[in-house]
Amino acid sequence: MIIDDKKGIELALEEAKKGYAEGGVPIGALLVSGDGQILGRGHNMRFQKNSAILHAEMSALENAGRMKGNVYKDCTMYTSLSPCDMCTGACIMYGIKRVVLGENTTLVGGEGYLKSRGVEVVNMDNQDCKDIMAKFIKERPDDWYEDIGQEK
Amino acid sequence: MIIDDKKGIELALEEAKKGYAEGGVPIGALLVSGDGQILGRGHNMRFQKNSAILHAEMSALENAGRMKGNVYKDCTMYTSLSPCDMCTGACIMYGIKRVVLGENTTLVGGEGYLKSRGVEVVNMDNQDCKDIMAKFIKERPDDWYEDIGQEK
Ligand SMILES: [Ca+2]
Ligand SMILES: [Ca+2]
Ligand SMILES: [Zn+2]
Ligand SMILES: [Zn+2]
Repeated sequence: MIIDDKKGIELALEEAKKGYAEGGVPIGALLVSGDGQILGRGHNMRFQKNSAILHAEMSALENAGRMKGNVYKDCTMYTSLSPCDMCTGACIMYGIKRVVLGENTTLVGGEGYLKSRGVEVVNMDNQDCKDIMAKFIKERPDDWYEDIGQEK
Repeated sequence: MIIDDKKGIELALEEAKKGYAEGGVPIGALLVSGDGQILGRGHNMRFQKNSAILHAEMSALENAGRMKGNVYKDCTMYTSLSPCDMCTGACIMYGIKRVVLGENTTLVGGEGYLKSRGVEVVNMDNQDCKDIMAKFIKERPDDWYEDIGQEK
């Protein structure tokens, strides 16, 4: 299966739904190589693993496993929500080429900084990605603020 | 025990030495509260756990566990080496107040970006922190490049 941007966000949303079903924050991500192969996929594991660092993009990177630096350079990170500063920094450190996000209505993350560091950013503005986050935040606002390090 | 900057880097170096003894990348970090208490400590676990994301600062955050957003706001992150873009982003996302680094001779990380985002940065310019990294990079250059996502 070759992953294009539409399919990438579809699978990121599928990961987000798995996260929701597990009682977690419904954000999913996929790391895809330049030739469209999935290298890693995952979703936010804050509540499932009591983790302070396993945001969706971090889970996708971790599940891809250890790889040489050159492998990342033509990769795309698909994420159902605009990446926070931590996940933005992880994409920059590894030199990921493109970040494709499902939406940035819920949160505008590090898109500007990514661009300033030479990363291509595409917003697919996907309604299903917005809806699952709106539902989660309405149900569990404190858990959402905790996930992004905010005070309230 | 109240952790000041000198003690913080001393303990980060102690973590780095543990990492070296385990066959890992010798970088250590500590997350310390505003009143000088250790909330989390750890070291780079790339080789020990086959992890693409467990840099020292990420390990310290993870070992501190899930905390409410307000807890981070007066914290200091001590790290034996200038933080890479990923760890820089993690400190920014959580709103950590200060980043104190052992040295930036081996690598200049996100110090400028941290300052631009309002984080205080202090470089302790510690010779022992430099020496352990110089030794590691001489012994295992490819493993070092892998850890920071570089191509060679
Ligand atoms: Ca792994
Ligand atoms: Ca934990
Ligand atoms: Zn994130
Ligand atoms: Zn790092």
